[in-house]
Amino acid sequence: MVSHPYVPQDLVLEDYVPVSLAQSTIVGVYGIASVLVASFIWLISGRCAKLSKMERLIMCWWAFTGLTHMVLEGYFVFSPEFYKDKTGNFLAEVWKEYSKGDSRYAGRDAGIVTIEGLTAVIEGPACLLAVFAIAKRKYYSDLLQISISLGQLYGTAAYFVMSILQGDNFAMSPFYYYSYYIFANSFWVWIPSLIVIRSWKIISAAVASHQAPAQKKNKTR
Amino acid sequence: MVSHPYVPQDLVLEDYVPVSLAQSTIVGVYGIASVLVASFIWLISGRCAKLSKMERLIMCWWAFTGLTHMVLEGYFVFSPEFYKDKTGNFLAEVWKEYSKGDSRYAGRDAGIVTIEGLTAVIEGPACLLAVFAIAKRKYYSDLLQISISLGQLYGTAAYFVMSILQGDNFAMSPFYYYSYYIFANSFWVWIPSLIVIRSWKIISAAVASHQAPAQKKNKTR
Repeated sequence: MVSHPYVPQDLVLEDYVPVSLAQSTIVGVYGIASVLVASFIWLISGRCAKLSKMERLIMCWWAFTGLTHMVLEGYFVFSPEFYKDKTGNFLAEVWKEYSKGDSRYAGRDAGIVTIEGLTAVIEGPACLLAVFAIAKRKYYSDLLQISISLGQLYGTAAYFVMSILQGDNFAMSPFYYYSYYIFANSFWVWIPSLIVIRSWKIISAAVASHQAPAQKKNKTR
Repeated sequence: MVSHPYVPQDLVLEDYVPVSLAQSTIVGVYGIASVLVASFIWLISGRCAKLSKMERLIMCWWAFTGLTHMVLEGYFVFSPEFYKDKTGNFLAEVWKEYSKGDSRYAGRDAGIVTIEGLTAVIEGPACLLAVFAIAKRKYYSDLLQISISLGQLYGTAAYFVMSILQGDNFAMSPFYYYSYYIFANSFWVWIPSLIVIRSWKIISAAVASHQAPAQKKNKTR
């Protein structure tokens, strides 16, 4: 007797209430909200003449990923019974839908809740601090961006490795496997990687030019 | 019918072979080996007149923790059946003994294997690179130390959070809980925290002094 659509079928989800919104609605609302957030940051940051387009683009990313961590993932972490939701709560619908690609969310796997918890509670607010730090050209801006990006990379790596160790059989179909589990998560692999490389270069240049005069001074002594 | 001493008793470990070495031997060999590694690094690094005592102390830590990650934790990651070992292999004995404080190791919990895998394969070699980077005063030394330390802190946080979510009932007795699970792991909380603070300050000072002349130049224009 299976009362839910998820894989594996022996997953027990008592009082499961099926997803009520269409997939296009769920993905569409998240997509439009993300575009609105990014547009808002792009426009506001354009008023700072000092910021380059790349810096403004990266601020959009930090605002988008920070709000995703805090709102979407934060809801998941603190709503163990989202799959029983009858009210059509959008956030519950998101996770009912995403669980089609990874049922460990509905099944409340301890490893998933742990990674999502650290991401929502620590990394989420840190991402919003990064938006501020870039805008204000704080000296810790690139260090903060490297720190958060490495945390995101660690979380995503642990997410995929755990799944492989557990048998990698949590998606309803190849469509959900590749679109939700692989494609959607891939953004948190390549974007943090690019940011680590960029900020690493910026800091290295600063440290190298800080060391250079010191070494010169030592040599002339 | 319980064939092993671990908690919870319903953990199934077929063909379990009891630990054969005394606790004092296991802890003693690990302790002496660690002291030898640290002493070796301390003596060698003393030949570099440029290194401060604090830098040499931190090099000892990186050598100790790197070898612990690669040898001890690396063995665990790639030896799923260590609890069946009959040969008295020291590394198998270590994990049989440590499982008294956290049976998820013997039980091969996917989250534990994932964290230990990332630690052994990525962080382990990076720690040895940090020893080299400090000795050679590489420009990336402090960035690398922050990156590894944050990874260690992420891993330790995930380790404890997962345990709490799983019921925090994996130790044979309060003695093993506090000595193995809490005390032994605490070193990977406070030492990485101190290193993050130290290296963060060093990099911040370099970035700030790099920014300062640039800002001055802008103002005079």
